[in-house]
Amino acid sequence: MFREKIKVLDCTIRDGGLINDHDFDFRFVREVYKALSEAGVDYMEIGYKNSKKLFDPKKFGKWKFCDDDDIKKVIEGIESKTKISVMVDVDRVDMEDIKPRKESPVAMVRVASYVKDIDKAIYLANGFADKGYETAINIMAISKALDNELTECLIQLEKEAKVQVVYIVDSFGALYQESTEFLIKKAKSILKTKEVGIHAHNNQQLAFSNTIEAIIHDANFVDATVYGLGRAAGNCPLELMLGFLKNPKFDIRPVLDLISKEFIPLREKMEWGYIIPYAITGILDEHPRTAIALRESNKKENYREFYDSLVGQDED
Amino acid sequence: MFREKIKVLDCTIRDGGLINDHDFDFRFVREVYKALSEAGVDYMEIGYKNSKKLFDPKKFGKWKFCDDDDIKKVIEGIESKTKISVMVDVDRVDMEDIKPRKESPVAMVRVASYVKDIDKAIYLANGFADKGYETAINIMAISKALDNELTECLIQLEKEAKVQVVYIVDSFGALYQESTEFLIKKAKSILKTKEVGIHAHNNQQLAFSNTIEAIIHDANFVDATVYGLGRAAGNCPLELMLGFLKNPKFDIRPVLDLISKEFIPLREKMEWGYIIPYAITGILDEHPRTAIALRESNKKENYREFYDSLVGQDED
Repeated sequence: MFREKIKVLDCTIRDGGLINDHDFDFRFVREVYKALSEAGVDYMEIGYKNSKKLFDPKKFGKWKFCDDDDIKKVIEGIESKTKISVMVDVDRVDMEDIKPRKESPVAMVRVASYVKDIDKAIYLANGFADKGYETAINIMAISKALDNELTECLIQLEKEAKVQVVYIVDSFGALYQESTEFLIKKAKSILKTKEVGIHAHNNQQLAFSNTIEAIIHDANFVDATVYGLGRAAGNCPLELMLGFLKNPKFDIRPVLDLISKEFIPLREKMEWGYIIPYAITGILDEHPRTAIALRESNKKENYREFYDSLVGQDED
Repeated sequence: MFREKIKVLDCTIRDGGLINDHDFDFRFVREVYKALSEAGVDYMEIGYKNSKKLFDPKKFGKWKFCDDDDIKKVIEGIESKTKISVMVDVDRVDMEDIKPRKESPVAMVRVASYVKDIDKAIYLANGFADKGYETAINIMAISKALDNELTECLIQLEKEAKVQVVYIVDSFGALYQESTEFLIKKAKSILKTKEVGIHAHNNQQLAFSNTIEAIIHDANFVDATVYGLGRAAGNCPLELMLGFLKNPKFDIRPVLDLISKEFIPLREKMEWGYIIPYAITGILDEHPRTAIALRESNKKENYREFYDSLVGQDED
């Protein structure tokens, strides 16, 4: 019944790190790694490889840089088949920071890119591939991509990129299942030699269903996070994904335990999930930055005024 | 672009009443009615018509009985095109309590029924139709219905029931979109002279997407509730549905206002929504009653133990 090719990548620490400047402590990250390992999750994405020339390590947590030694402290002594992934942003990584795969605890590097930066993303991803890593490119803000430009981008990826996977990223949580179907089918039709993945945001409570929709149309790499943790509305909840997938290697129970012990208390301190201003930016297909600012203001529950401020903008 | 036939029925007060024994005060119910009217919502379901011989009016709120005089107090003085709906359960209603349509503020009566009780449901619904009401039958626990029995039930509804609408009710929040598609297509193929509706529960964050899925396959009656209010995991959020539908008669803003002013404070006092034990009963296709009991106990965050208690049950 199950499709063995489906791989689950948990990006709890990486995407959740966007809320707290990547400042999760070792104990917490080890608890997540332990639970994901027991649950049979294929990959754990732990953070970004950012250049320390661009960002001051004193001002951010460890997982904005993901030094190999820090990753080793997370995984040591824990029995696991879960591979470690890191993300890099175009223009923010020093290639020389990345050691060859054989010397690193990292298995996969994913390059996040807008359609317009795809040349840079391919250059980076191929560099990581040459160092021996599994690689992927995540195409962000897909709901804003013009169809002709996306077509060109996908053709170029198929021809030039050494990546195993190309992800469709619904950055704004704006996709409904019909558009998800359209985009996944389009990607599959062009990317003959690569897998297609999905990273869905949960602004409209559609991250899980869009991920299922992508699976139905043959996406084999799916992103999820524990209890949906992630910036703004968060992501596809891992526990729901494990409840849906039929591969017997997966076990939901360690993740349930982890939510009880770590994520219920965490939710008291950090905000993410179904919150109306994020639903509004999702409905309007907008970046959540205005909603994040609203939630940090003293007007955080003024939804109507916020909505009017967005729909009233002149765009000519 | 939009499909004019799509009708939105808000059942906030009716389904939310399952949490608080239908004890919403007049002021609150009027605020909801006012906002739904301004938003252009087609129907507002206000509660149940239950027999006072079976339930003691002193022990329950008004909306367990929905006396016409109480409904009149809600709607008086408010300009509105929103029709009032009430629900009845098989074996719990006195037909003589229901006045002719012309003498009542109620426009629609919906009969909730399991497949096994469909004869009783048709008898009741036809009685209400004869009194002049719009009528519907809601088939509950659809995820547990045997296909042959459901087929027979639908054929009987098509032949014998005078109802305008037959709803598919995902009582346990267990359906994924492929099963929703299957069930809606099945219902549409048999119910040639009736509309098909959907009432989805949100245990797995799929209520909204399953409702969209039903719309894609030609369901024209959709249930929703403000901020997803409803017993256990709640329902399809009305604000998301209005954000999705393209009919210019709908206006999301009064609903955003209502959430700010009434539902954010209410959520501090009443619990509903994405809560792991309800996700678990949804994944396992079970009634939420065990999860409701867990949430009222001192083990409310013991998810793993709860999961094990459900999957460990012998069913022979």
